[in-house]
Order: sequence, then C-alpha cells, then structure tokens
Amino acid sequence: MKIPELQDGLRDANLDACILMDTDPNVFYFAGVELERCTLVIPSKGEPAILAVMLEEERIKADGSIGRVLSFSTAVERDKILRGLLKDFRRIAVNRDYLSLRNSDYLKSVAPIHELVDCSGNLSMLRQVKTSREIELIREACRRTDVILGKTISQFDFRTELEVKNHLHEQVIRFGDKLSFDTIVASGKNASMPHYSGSGKLQNGFCVIDFGIRHKGYCSDMTRTVYVGKPGRKDREMYELVRAAQQKGIDAAKDSAVAADVDAAARKALGRHSGSFIHGLGHHIGIEVHDAGFRIAPGSKGVLKSGMAITIEPGMYFPGKSGIRIEDDLLIRKGRGELLTKYMREFTVVG
Amino acid sequence: MKIPELQDGLRDANLDACILMDTDPNVFYFAGVELERCTLVIPSKGEPAILAVMLEEERIKADGSIGRVLSFSTAVERDKILRGLLKDFRRIAVNRDYLSLRNSDYLKSVAPIHELVDCSGNLSMLRQVKTSREIELIREACRRTDVILGKTISQFDFRTELEVKNHLHEQVIRFGDKLSFDTIVASGKNASMPHYSGSGKLQNGFCVIDFGIRHKGYCSDMTRTVYVGKPGRKDREMYELVRAAQQKGIDAAKDSAVAADVDAAARKALGRHSGSFIHGLGHHIGIEVHDAGFRIAPGSKGVLKSGMAITIEPGMYFPGKSGIRIEDDLLIRKGRGELLTKYMREFTVVG
Repeated sequence: MKIPELQDGLRDANLDACILMDTDPNVFYFAGVELERCTLVIPSKGEPAILAVMLEEERIKADGSIGRVLSFSTAVERDKILRGLLKDFRRIAVNRDYLSLRNSDYLKSVAPIHELVDCSGNLSMLRQVKTSREIELIREACRRTDVILGKTISQFDFRTELEVKNHLHEQVIRFGDKLSFDTIVASGKNASMPHYSGSGKLQNGFCVIDFGIRHKGYCSDMTRTVYVGKPGRKDREMYELVRAAQQKGIDAAKDSAVAADVDAAARKALGRHSGSFIHGLGHHIGIEVHDAGFRIAPGSKGVLKSGMAITIEPGMYFPGKSGIRIEDDLLIRKGRGELLTKYMREFTVVG
Repeated sequence: MKIPELQDGLRDANLDACILMDTDPNVFYFAGVELERCTLVIPSKGEPAILAVMLEEERIKADGSIGRVLSFSTAVERDKILRGLLKDFRRIAVNRDYLSLRNSDYLKSVAPIHELVDCSGNLSMLRQVKTSREIELIREACRRTDVILGKTISQFDFRTELEVKNHLHEQVIRFGDKLSFDTIVASGKNASMPHYSGSGKLQNGFCVIDFGIRHKGYCSDMTRTVYVGKPGRKDREMYELVRAAQQKGIDAAKDSAVAADVDAAARKALGRHSGSFIHGLGHHIGIEVHDAGFRIAPGSKGVLKSGMAITIEPGMYFPGKSGIRIEDDLLIRKGRGELLTKYMREFTVVG
C-alpha cells in the first residue's frame, strides 16, 4: 500500500530511506507479509528491499508485494547485506513507536547513518485514510462479523461464556478467517470489565459480546450487549441510553468533524451517567484492530476524513455489578458515514 | 513468576527498579496479565506496581498477580502517577529488545533517570529455566496438542489445507485454548516453505502440519509430516533421514549440552542433505512460542539446563518441490529429556 506516497514524503523531508523492522505492523502494510524478524528498506527513490532469514524467502516471494527479497543464513551475512544496502544512506526515517533500542543501535552499527528521523506520524497519516482495496477488505470483514455475531445472538442458547465464544469461533473457522483480538464474552458482573477475559458460567443480567475477525489482514471490531434472564425497567432504560449515545456518535462522525467533538456528542447523551463511560468512544480499524491514528476520545484533536474507518462504541460500567457496550464500525464519508456492521441494536432478551 | 529473583538481580547490579512497558512479553511473565498499553514498575525492594488505563483496572485486579494497580484516565494523570512512582529512582533496568525509542524518551521525560541499563539478558536467563508451575502448564499444552494433532492425522480425510487447519482449530476451541501461532498446513510443493501460510487444495506428496496451542498462557509447538498419495522408495528414505536426525537431536539434548552441538548432532545425521536443512534445530518454548533464550542452531553457545523446554525440529526443504519437518517439545533433564509431545513419528500415508 502507498509506497509511492511514502517515497514522496521521504524526498520532501530530504530523507534517504525509511527502515521498518520486525513486528512493526507497517511492514505488513507496505510488504503484504507478516514476519517475526525482518528489515524492510524503502529508499526515497527506487525499489524497496526486504531482508529476512532464508527460510522465509520463498514465502515472501509468493505472498508479499516486495520484489527484491534478500535472504541470509547467518548474522554475518545479514550484516553484510544490510551494510551494502545502506551504504549511501545518511538520513533515515524510522518508526519510533516500534523501533526498539536494540534495533536502533544495530542500524547505527551497520550503516553510516547520521540521523534517525521519526516518521511515525507520517506512517499514521498514510494509514488513516484507506485505499479502495482496503475499504473493500474491511467491508467484507465487517459483513462476515455481522453474519457471525447475528447468528450467535439469534440462536442464543448457551450455559457458559466459553460456549458463546466457541460458537463465534467455529463460524470464523468456517469462513477461513482469524480473530482480530481475543473475543470478550462478559456476563453479569463480569460485564463491568471492558476487557474481561474469563470464560465462566453465563450469569443473569447484561452480557457484553465484543468480537472481531481478521480477513485477509483487515480487522473488524463489533460489540452487542444482550440481556440474559428477566430485565427490569431500569435495565431497559440504561440500555437505551447507551444506544442513543451511540446514535449521537454515529450522527456526528463525518468528514471534517473533530474527534473530541464526536466523543462529546455521545458522552453528553449519557447525561448524569457519563462518569460510567470509562473509555474513549472509538478508534481506527485497519490492519490492526486498534489501527494507526488518533483516538475518538476526549481531548483528541484528530479530524475525521472521508475514507477513514473507525469504531463507535460507547459503554457504561458499574464495577462489581454490570456493564453495557454497543459497538459498530463506520466508514467516514462527506455526509453520513456508512455503517459497516448492521446487525440490529434493539434491546434483546435471551436465555 | 520469579519477581524475587529479578529483585535480587537488580540489587546486585545496583539498579533501583526494572520498568517493562506495553506489549513486552515479560509483562505477562511477571504480572500474569496481557495488556496493550501499560507500565510495570518492579523496584529493587518493595512492592511492584502496574499502571494502566482505568478500563483495565478491574481486570488486572481479577486476573493479575500484581497487588498494586494504579489506573488513570488521561495522559496528564498518567504522567503524574509515574513521576511520583519513579521520583527516587536513578538507575533503571529496561528491556532494550522491546523498549521503543518513543517509550525510552518518555521515561526520561517523566523521571530523573540517570541511566537506562539493559536487562534483556537477565530476563532471558530468568525465563529459560521454567518453574514447576510453568512445566505443568507447558506439559498440559503439549498433551492437548498431541491429542489434537494425533486425532487429525488418524482421521485424515481432507480435500484442502484449510480443512486440515479447521479440524485442528475446532478441537482447540473445544479445549478452550488458543493457537500459539498461525497453523501451517503445507502440502506438495508448498511444503518447501517452512512458514507457508496458504490454504489451498491438498496436493499429493508430503504435507507438513505445524501446529501449537496456548494453554493458560503457555505454548506448545509440534510438527508432523504425512504423505498424501502413493509414496516412492525415495520419499520413505528422505522421511526416515529427518526422523533419524530428530532422534539424534533428542538424544543429544540434555543438561550441560551446548546448543550448537545438539544442532550439529541432528544436522550431521542428514549427511549430504544437510544443505536442505535451512533453519535451526530448535528454540525455547514458554509464554512465547519462540520463547526467550538462545536458539538451538549452528554457532549457538547456549548451554542446556535441566528445566528448560525446547523444540527439536529438523527439516529438509526442496524449493518448488517438497519439504519434510518433524518437531517435538522436550523438557531438558539431567539424563534423557522428557518428550512432551509423543504422537507417533512413523512414516504415515494418508488420503
């Protein structure tokens, strides 16, 4: 994705190359392949190259989008190849968010580098607005997530949180996809933990199901909260409050809106319960489930642009008691955004 | 795990504290909980503390092993808490393998740090020899993997590589575990790529199945190669060569053995085919599937010790043609190691 755009930026900033290493997600973004250890060198002009151990060579050539694959067997060979590749580069762009102190020292030891310049902001800017191919992949990830979560809720007949997860995961497998993060199924008082990771007996009360898949490298992220047992009037009211807040967020999220304002629109709708909304309203999605870019949260100065893909996920949490969250994925447009996850948000009683 | 041992090391090196951040796997090792963003501060004396966003507080208290949980909502709050916590610390141990340039700068900006001292080697040493609780978890992960892979091979009736993966994954779900890495099912010429990631039609010839689970945070890693279709005499010979090499590796891997010698024992058994063995013989397993510690590979000076858990996984790869790998997990002991994965390694024809 967007290698020419990155190279334009490098030349504008008078940088000789950008180097990305190991598990930095930008390697997948630019090279189309995930590697535990590798070095991706994108010069300001000319062809990018990727260095990896020999055992990865054939796979990179088969799956990746970088034509020049340099492989090595030993550390000595690796140093030699990199030294040759970097010999004319002085000012290097790196990603300070991911480059470890170890790799930073290593780069300086093998090449005559004068300066390592942070390009994390530029990388983030590039990734925030999705290409049409990326939008297609995210849309499909969301469509599948919608089908899977919808089926699990409409056929809800489980005794444990684990059974809910398994029902979701079996469907992910049938699609041939992966999870984009560890599924959260949090019932009863567990629902007060936004990132609860247990798998116990399904308890009465609200049950938060937060689930996403990774389809051809692109993530979805979706939450529905259902009610197990007999709800009271108060339960319905609290749920509708979160649902209304989400709608306010969705309505506010359009091209040119400031992230903090979108967050505030939803937060305000929670009224005196806004103190129970203990996280931001949303985040970008893409090759990472929390993708590069600003958060949709209080104080966030980020500006939404057509082509960005974000989550809108207000919640309320009552420690030791219960929790509610509703989350959908939204593609930002000039006018109203396009909801990528569509399963109904009506108050739903199950079990 | 082993916080007192880490603190002993800090005092010996005259360090005031160890700070571990974000996705550094050592956070899970010491704190028992996985977080995307956090700061774990282990002082040389006294109680460790973990900082995380408010939404994680209840979960850390429920799942983690660190009693002192400090949570914040805003960056300003975070800075203030960390400034207070670090105000008396001057010499800080950090993990240069994981600490990003960004976080390194951040730590220096909030605390009166004089020196960041690398402790990656110490962390690796601590983690290499497993505690009895860790051994129990790894043993169980391996037992389950053995059951799952064995069942899939004994009932082998698949048309695609994806179907093989799905059959494995459905069983992982039933156990309530996760994958420790993306399963590899590589048939026919795909088998020549040690880390092949496709999911196509099952081709005749060798089919490499490399699979592991993560059970309560601990990983297994196991490979069997079966033959699809009608093998020739040569196929059997090549397979037996890899199997014999693996046995040589297993026999050599005991307390006090040098890693390079264990690798060489297996490599030598491949004779004139040793050039087709394009990766190391093995690696540690633990909270990561490639766990902290030396590789079992040419040139590796690491010394095996009782209580280490490693893989023994020789292979041969013929680009564009085929590949074979056999991998088991081994617990190092004074005498012979304990094989943790036991499913038969006899040449197996399927389909």
